Amino acid sequence: MADITHVSPLAPAEFPTLPVIEGAEFAAVEAGVKYQNRKDVMLARLAPGTTLAGVFTKSSTRAAPVLDCQAKIGLDSSDGAAIIVNAGNANAFTGKNGAEATNAVTSAVASVLGVPENRIFSSSTGVIGEPLPYDRITGKLDELKQRLSDTSIQDAAEGIRTTDTFAKGSGAEIEIDGKPVKIAGIAKGSGMIAPDMATMLVYIFTDAKIARPVLQSMLSELTDLTFNNITVDSDTSTSDTLLLAATGASGAEVTDTTGPFRDALHQVMLDLAHQVVRDGEGATKFVEISVSGAATDADARTHALAIANSPLVKTAVAGEDPNWGRIVMAIGKSGAAADRDLLSIKFGDILVAENGWVCESYNEDDGASYMKQQDLNINVDIGLGTGQSTVWTCDLTHGYITINADYRS
Amino acid sequence: MADITHVSPLAPAEFPTLPVIEGAEFAAVEAGVKYQNRKDVMLARLAPGTTLAGVFTKSSTRAAPVLDCQAKIGLDSSDGAAIIVNAGNANAFTGKNGAEATNAVTSAVASVLGVPENRIFSSSTGVIGEPLPYDRITGKLDELKQRLSDTSIQDAAEGIRTTDTFAKGSGAEIEIDGKPVKIAGIAKGSGMIAPDMATMLVYIFTDAKIARPVLQSMLSELTDLTFNNITVDSDTSTSDTLLLAATGASGAEVTDTTGPFRDALHQVMLDLAHQVVRDGEGATKFVEISVSGAATDADARTHALAIANSPLVKTAVAGEDPNWGRIVMAIGKSGAAADRDLLSIKFGDILVAENGWVCESYNEDDGASYMKQQDLNINVDIGLGTGQSTVWTCDLTHGYITINADYRS
Repeated sequence: MADITHVSPLAPAEFPTLPVIEGAEFAAVEAGVKYQNRKDVMLARLAPGTTLAGVFTKSSTRAAPVLDCQAKIGLDSSDGAAIIVNAGNANAFTGKNGAEATNAVTSAVASVLGVPENRIFSSSTGVIGEPLPYDRITGKLDELKQRLSDTSIQDAAEGIRTTDTFAKGSGAEIEIDGKPVKIAGIAKGSGMIAPDMATMLVYIFTDAKIARPVLQSMLSELTDLTFNNITVDSDTSTSDTLLLAATGASGAEVTDTTGPFRDALHQVMLDLAHQVVRDGEGATKFVEISVSGAATDADARTHALAIANSPLVKTAVAGEDPNWGRIVMAIGKSGAAADRDLLSIKFGDILVAENGWVCESYNEDDGASYMKQQDLNINVDIGLGTGQSTVWTCDLTHGYITINADYRS
Repeated sequence: MADITHVSPLAPAEFPTLPVIEGAEFAAVEAGVKYQNRKDVMLARLAPGTTLAGVFTKSSTRAAPVLDCQAKIGLDSSDGAAIIVNAGNANAFTGKNGAEATNAVTSAVASVLGVPENRIFSSSTGVIGEPLPYDRITGKLDELKQRLSDTSIQDAAEGIRTTDTFAKGSGAEIEIDGKPVKIAGIAKGSGMIAPDMATMLVYIFTDAKIARPVLQSMLSELTDLTFNNITVDSDTSTSDTLLLAATGASGAEVTDTTGPFRDALHQVMLDLAHQVVRDGEGATKFVEISVSGAATDADARTHALAIANSPLVKTAVAGEDPNWGRIVMAIGKSGAAADRDLLSIKFGDILVAENGWVCESYNEDDGASYMKQQDLNINVDIGLGTGQSTVWTCDLTHGYITINADYRS
């Protein structure tokens, strides 16, 4: 198994202090699903009246808990709800046993918490293809219930990690109609990260009061600007799940998908998405790739992802090599419209290439010096139209090979 | 620069003895385009009456020599022809200077050999974005002409290498209407290898007499079965060029695109394509991925390439880990039709998974033992239809990172 005691060099200095979300309680325990001596199961209990929205992997081989969540997410309900997540085993490609295990977990949670089973959402993350030893989870439910606390969200973030080298959290506090409104989210993910959607588990909580259709619409739209625009290795997991729960406890109601709540939620989602990239397996560089001037926004995203997923671009970044030729190559292969002689490329503010060739003012030493930074911006203008897109990725290093040639995921 | 003194562990034991193609002569010299102390420019002279067909990269940022070849390849002519290739500099993304450099080289070759300029085909491979020091090439043309010999094809194979760790050649001899017919081909390529087309330079010669339309049709069709189905790193070069020249000197005429000539040409192309994969940057395993039972052949190819290009599958192969869960993941993300519970997966003859789960008869030790082989077969049946496809790839290792984080290509 990979050494996960070494924290990513791109990690934030510390886990943030997240606001307490009234109506949401958390607990995490060591259940030994696969890992020993670390928290690996988390439970979140949500108060009656909570609305939930979700976004899930589009993989055609998605795991049993994902299918179960998708079947349940569309229901409006004034009952409470709960989210149960285990790390270490993805309960994916486990035949009919997969659904049985998921049902065993969700029905046990329903029974312990006194909440209808169709309001219990579960996720599993870790190894594919091994039966989920679900009794290890259900055997810990009483302890989880006892530990539930509205200040334990960091424990929850710890409990959902697999190869993550740090727990990921982000929060925001705003005011709506004079009432304080809070958002707190946690995420896991570091390998098998690519749209759609960003191959990870994400749980976000707010005390705003938001009807389900509004919540879902906002979540889907913001996912396209955040988690769907990150990539570590172009591989998409079978377990991607993003759940957004609104307890309504603040009394402040959000009725449309624009305005300050959306902006705050966007910020939390972007922060979590960036943290996942910053924990990319083996990552030593965080790279923002902005493409403008494409024929359409979709073309811009195709170009940006072709650059972000190119092993040759990613290894050049790892080697701190300002190898803009590989960026030209990636644009050329993307399949979206481009004209070699209209391209311009910048590293940060440094104009590198334009009019189909390296720029006269460009100095290789400036490029090499820029590439030594930990956070990089690659800016490409296609020169054809007004389409634009921004995606985020990391470099491809020996660390990625070491982690993935050994770790059975 | 990468250490290319270390030969790939997957390399053939030696360069094959290739048949002499009457009407085709070769030479290679040290021109110092970029590399020192190695042959880096090759010239092939083709006798009057030679027909030529070509396949080129679809990159929208393709290099000047590619555009020049594409403009010339469709012409029928009874004049002689020539192919001039340099390694070390791709003459790609070099603005208007790119076309000027290409024209300078091809017009000089035309003048030295006394062949019309529209019959001079050139390729350049190596660094992108630096001006081609074409005088280093034109300054060697007299020497190249003097060295031309019908037995120097191995020199030519040596002269087109960049990060290749071995020169690649393949040949065949057959009989048509009682007359001996020969085929000899050379190739270069080891990184930036992916369809379409397989990101490399390939030159194949035969003494059969074949009209241009027949030659082009056969070449295009066979490219889809060979070079378009290999991938090292999913990156597509700006310089891909495959030229097939038929001198007609054998007197044996090929008039249709089926039959023994096609089969022999297919074999030569497949051998060269496999050699490129065997020289994949950092490769330690050669992997054949066969997908059957897909809804269509195109779907089968999409699945096969998703598996072949998945960094998580490729690192698992590098780690000799029979990690079939990652194969399920890759199928799931490919976008082509699949049903989790109808999939079956074999490593060689070992049935690993079926009916949506690991097979009862499967023993992890057998899988682990199988993965220790140098040549691997991953066989997937989608269980939906009759579509099938086979692609070839290699593993993703520390060697790939080392080569590409340092080498400016």
